[in-house]
Amino acid sequence: MKLYDNDFAPSPRRVRMFIAEKGLEARGVRITRVPVDIAAHETQVAAFLEVNPLGEVPVLELDDGTRLQESLAICRYLESLHPEPCLFGATPLARARIEAMTLGLMFRIYVPTTQAFRHTHRFWQGRVTQIAEYGALTREQVLAEWQRIDGLLAARPFVAGDSFSFADIVAFTTLEFGKPSGIRLQPTQQHLSRWYAAIAARPSSKA
Amino acid sequence: MKLYDNDFAPSPRRVRMFIAEKGLEARGVRITRVPVDIAAHETQVAAFLEVNPLGEVPVLELDDGTRLQESLAICRYLESLHPEPCLFGATPLARARIEAMTLGLMFRIYVPTTQAFRHTHRFWQGRVTQIAEYGALTREQVLAEWQRIDGLLAARPFVAGDSFSFADIVAFTTLEFGKPSGIRLQPTQQHLSRWYAAIAARPSSKA
Repeated sequence: MKLYDNDFAPSPRRVRMFIAEKGLEARGVRITRVPVDIAAHETQVAAFLEVNPLGEVPVLELDDGTRLQESLAICRYLESLHPEPCLFGATPLARARIEAMTLGLMFRIYVPTTQAFRHTHRFWQGRVTQIAEYGALTREQVLAEWQRIDGLLAARPFVAGDSFSFADIVAFTTLEFGKPSGIRLQPTQQHLSRWYAAIAARPSSKA
Repeated sequence: MKLYDNDFAPSPRRVRMFIAEKGLEARGVRITRVPVDIAAHETQVAAFLEVNPLGEVPVLELDDGTRLQESLAICRYLESLHPEPCLFGATPLARARIEAMTLGLMFRIYVPTTQAFRHTHRFWQGRVTQIAEYGALTREQVLAEWQRIDGLLAARPFVAGDSFSFADIVAFTTLEFGKPSGIRLQPTQQHLSRWYAAIAARPSSKA
């Protein structure tokens, strides 16, 4: 398989972290990385738009040429081929809880984090219409959401419950991606800090 | 089971449409609707925040009191209990394609449609900070995305391929939800119009 990838974007990082947690490479699953330079507009050139007309990474290309988009769909597909360790939940109820937490993180934190970046960061200047007031608003929303997650983590070790799951991958990569927009752990967020340190200590966090 | 529900919001409508497509009520699955009046702030009162601390509908409450959030997670859970007709895909690859399409619709069309509504509509005046310029920007993005979907539908009957799937439910309820923000089918979008008429003709569209 091939993974169209980028070192700095949060979505392909989810897939790399998932692959590392599943230990796929150690189990002989070959996934060749194809780096795509977003900053140099490589996602927008004809050759890449043939791979993904949406101009987005990650894309997983199977050996028969079939291409899959969207990090959540890619990871769930890989889990269906290699069920263990189980990161999307082992029962219908566990799967529903992990998915609900994952989507809550995506809609309430990840999307506004990308908007804070898009509407305030120098990287996007001249590339898109920036509305600084909207960027500031989303940043405040995201900071409030992390405060809420700090509260959740007072009662459980991982964001979706007792075990590490795909939701932790989404949370960790999203928190990391907040840094360029000034979205960081607050010193008072002791539960979130404990969780962050635990995830950062996993080898997959370097993937 | 109980479904905390609202007649006008797009997310609970997805669940109602899914339940209708699965024919769950005809198969003796009892799901009692509990209407929650968002306009009257009922999602923000203590009694409802105990049901869902996020103050959002839908919530599916199982007979043992377990509560599930997020329309996608709720519908996937119901599909795991009642696999036929299959609306999330029958094979890992079909599931990945339907999920990728669903998420693409959610992130590229549904989220900006909610933002267009939130930042421009009278309903939200005085309830949230409205940034009209951002609302207008998201509306333009959404109109461009529907144009793209019109192109996709030139080559296939349903948004994710040859069969009706959960992705069609997301697309249909999102297009309907665009109306108050002036996001409508364009007369030139013949493929999208044909698809829209076909979905609107299904009894589930009235759910």
